[in-house]
Amino acid sequence: MRELVAHQILWRTANEAPGVEIVSPPRRFTYADLHERSTRLANGLRRRGIGRGSVVGVLDVNTHRYLELHYALSMLGAVLHTLNFRLPADDLLYTVQHAGDEWLLVGEGFEKVAAAADPIVANRVWLTDAAQPPRPGEPTLEDLIADGTATAPPEADGVSESDVLSIFYTTGTTGRPRGMRYRHRDMLLASLQILHHLALHRGGAEVSASDTFMPLIPFFHIHAWGTAFFVPYLGAKLVLPGRADPATQLELIRREGVTFVNMVPTQLHMLLEACDAADGDLPLKVLTGGSPLSRGLAQRAWQKGVRYSLIYGGSDQLATGISVAGAGDPESEAAQEMLRTGTVPLAMVEVAVRGADGTPVPHDGVTIGEVHVRSPWLPPEGYYRDPERSREAYRDGWFASGDLAVRLQGGQVYVVDRERDAIKSGGEWIPSAVLEAVISEHPRVAAVAVLAEPDERWGERPLAVVQPAGELDVEELYDLLRRAADEGRLARFWVPERIVLVEQIPVTSAGKIHKAALRTQFGMT
Amino acid sequence: MRELVAHQILWRTANEAPGVEIVSPPRRFTYADLHERSTRLANGLRRRGIGRGSVVGVLDVNTHRYLELHYALSMLGAVLHTLNFRLPADDLLYTVQHAGDEWLLVGEGFEKVAAAADPIVANRVWLTDAAQPPRPGEPTLEDLIADGTATAPPEADGVSESDVLSIFYTTGTTGRPRGMRYRHRDMLLASLQILHHLALHRGGAEVSASDTFMPLIPFFHIHAWGTAFFVPYLGAKLVLPGRADPATQLELIRREGVTFVNMVPTQLHMLLEACDAADGDLPLKVLTGGSPLSRGLAQRAWQKGVRYSLIYGGSDQLATGISVAGAGDPESEAAQEMLRTGTVPLAMVEVAVRGADGTPVPHDGVTIGEVHVRSPWLPPEGYYRDPERSREAYRDGWFASGDLAVRLQGGQVYVVDRERDAIKSGGEWIPSAVLEAVISEHPRVAAVAVLAEPDERWGERPLAVVQPAGELDVEELYDLLRRAADEGRLARFWVPERIVLVEQIPVTSAGKIHKAALRTQFGMT
Repeated sequence: MRELVAHQILWRTANEAPGVEIVSPPRRFTYADLHERSTRLANGLRRRGIGRGSVVGVLDVNTHRYLELHYALSMLGAVLHTLNFRLPADDLLYTVQHAGDEWLLVGEGFEKVAAAADPIVANRVWLTDAAQPPRPGEPTLEDLIADGTATAPPEADGVSESDVLSIFYTTGTTGRPRGMRYRHRDMLLASLQILHHLALHRGGAEVSASDTFMPLIPFFHIHAWGTAFFVPYLGAKLVLPGRADPATQLELIRREGVTFVNMVPTQLHMLLEACDAADGDLPLKVLTGGSPLSRGLAQRAWQKGVRYSLIYGGSDQLATGISVAGAGDPESEAAQEMLRTGTVPLAMVEVAVRGADGTPVPHDGVTIGEVHVRSPWLPPEGYYRDPERSREAYRDGWFASGDLAVRLQGGQVYVVDRERDAIKSGGEWIPSAVLEAVISEHPRVAAVAVLAEPDERWGERPLAVVQPAGELDVEELYDLLRRAADEGRLARFWVPERIVLVEQIPVTSAGKIHKAALRTQFGMT
Repeated sequence: MRELVAHQILWRTANEAPGVEIVSPPRRFTYADLHERSTRLANGLRRRGIGRGSVVGVLDVNTHRYLELHYALSMLGAVLHTLNFRLPADDLLYTVQHAGDEWLLVGEGFEKVAAAADPIVANRVWLTDAAQPPRPGEPTLEDLIADGTATAPPEADGVSESDVLSIFYTTGTTGRPRGMRYRHRDMLLASLQILHHLALHRGGAEVSASDTFMPLIPFFHIHAWGTAFFVPYLGAKLVLPGRADPATQLELIRREGVTFVNMVPTQLHMLLEACDAADGDLPLKVLTGGSPLSRGLAQRAWQKGVRYSLIYGGSDQLATGISVAGAGDPESEAAQEMLRTGTVPLAMVEVAVRGADGTPVPHDGVTIGEVHVRSPWLPPEGYYRDPERSREAYRDGWFASGDLAVRLQGGQVYVVDRERDAIKSGGEWIPSAVLEAVISEHPRVAAVAVLAEPDERWGERPLAVVQPAGELDVEELYDLLRRAADEGRLARFWVPERIVLVEQIPVTSAGKIHKAALRTQFGMT
């Protein structure tokens, strides 16, 4: 390879590790197969008019077809739009329109959403093994593969690392989704640095070339947190679970010898439940993040044999930091620190946690500032076709994340609150995530969200919204909070005056608590 | 950092690991110091007129000053010419002239060579702690540091990854040295990939972020095989030995907790001797290469606790492959295979071992072809100001190494002969390195070189030139070779008709056997 271009990674691995497996139930492939099928697919797509700069939307779970599309579109210099199928239909269609998708490639189970997009984009390819597509006359991916020759299309050599590889729309808690266009170089560097960090730092989820990888993070989330690229780069065995329930995931892990899985804490919770039901341990390296990992879940996972690392990042900054502590007993001090998402910036990433005056906060574990990030993979253009929000977030080569953090003495970045959720009370920050963490320690709290409620005297005060699991007296929660304040875990003035019990806390398409919806519910917007 | 630019690595690490040590006896520094001293130095150099594109020759062993110069010159967009002080004076001066050096920065002990360069380049800076420079009136590096402010020079932000970082002249065994200009991006990618490979593959010299590194490879050899960049990138402790003899190297290793050293086999041999004299083990991870590691040396090292990996590459291709087998007992099969320099290409490197017809040889461990390499860091221009030799070596984006190799069944590249040294006899290749390896197994062979002697019947036949250690009868060598042929280790027709004993085999400046000189000696040129 001459440049950092996605399909050049595959070309190399198809030569160096042709026989290594890619398992995508019920089928099994190798890197040689991936190379051949992607090349044929590229030519098949090309015959349909897809080429340099074409934007192609894909709706699917993690299957071999989706992986093949990554490399086929790369060879054409086309743009892969990884559609977030967890978005509300309205938002999803907005992203199809905003990105300018010319084709929609639709996996099994997404027929209905795809039909809703008919007025915006008519071209369809069906990602299925079925001989007959859901709509007669439209091609399947297998038709295109059968159509195409096995010689790389002429465009492939001309694709440059500064061409756009993919586009994705972030699921903010407010406003319309924001588009991020990733260049080949940016996405590859960012993806590979996740792998390099995990190999160099030997934390809980330490990796090596002998690991077998299974992404449970969907491809639309930064290409399964980079696995679509870093596993082929490594030439390691890859297991793509498709639409597997937790019991099937567990079976795949055991049958295929999976040693590394990425997932959000909710998925880990479900996998552990499946593991309880099936008996046996779960000796697995897990990279997790996206929302806080509770002490209870960490403890359960650890007892089963899970060793984990925590990642901090997002679609608009890509990977920024990963914890480096070994995943010892979660009761240990190092693990406690790590549970507070103490992550170390990846080797090419600069992090500045900046106070109100713009200067970096001291590494004291106390002073709160906003996380600013600079790295080789920040998008030069900011958000796609969104100059206003771009100006707000991307300034002087830095990304202003809106996340609040402290820096621990060892330099780790501990995020105390995400996405401007913190509360400004009497001129001081109250990190809602810390309050949420304490309240969630109560065994009968199913979910909790702390909002900033306007307050005449203090500007804002915290409002705790709690979804109980069974009988719950709010007085128990006040006791819990006051005890935590006595122990120095939170400031006394952080304790909310109002705790409200609700039947159901709304969640976003990404499974995060939907604070915007909650604010509307409480008449705050 | 936005781009892959050397000083941006330092900027990041000065923030993330300011207190980590850089030991350069008799002085001790930190990354914060390196940052400050490099910045002041950049400004001091700038005041003397050194700026974007200036070529600055440096003659020194591995000291903190040399490291500081790497980053100071990077901030100015100037070009660091790493002068090979082992070259014959005539060749050295040729490189000073050919590269267009405007300044010569001279370390202790290199005063005489520097004086010879007076007619070519007059500007001097002396790399010394002495208050008085060797030549009164000329500045020392410490003077420049004292001159300069601690704010980055204005040029620093404008340096691009495609600017030239350094220039070096390779020491071929024939002809004048060839110049290689390395761009920031190329050198950084290549350097970091060595580290990533060692971390991901967990071979003998596996590394992690907790290692302490000491380069015994001089900076002029690809910046100490990348350590000038990859150790600061990692933010790890770095020990720069200066002009340390093997006993002092050993003392440094023990005192500073060094866990990783790179060196050529000859240095390993000397270090082991120092270790024998001082008693005790040598639990050390060693990256070695440049010339073959003999079985005997590997065995001795292993018994002392050394775990090693072998690297294949060169100044004109940078790192290409590193062995991945764990360094078990050298008698084991895996280690035997590794000793044959079975290296696995780095993750971004494509290797094709091509037969005479240009197609890749099968992975059968037998068929010999020429090693062709493609990687993101090959120089776009080939050799500097040398179009003819560039055209010969760099073709269609590939580097034709001239090295002969087979590919083992696992895909490893086993180099059977370097630099077109092999012998073509009756249309078949005879790898001289294999003959040399067998002959060197004799306990009283100090050095051996096998040359291609013109032969009327066969075209060429091998001629073995042997430097004995003590009493040696050539018949013993014939016996040894015949036994090896019986065992299938070499083909019967490879056994040379002529074995000649000499008092001294000439070596090149890099410590390799000087086959060109030997050929002249035997009237072959």
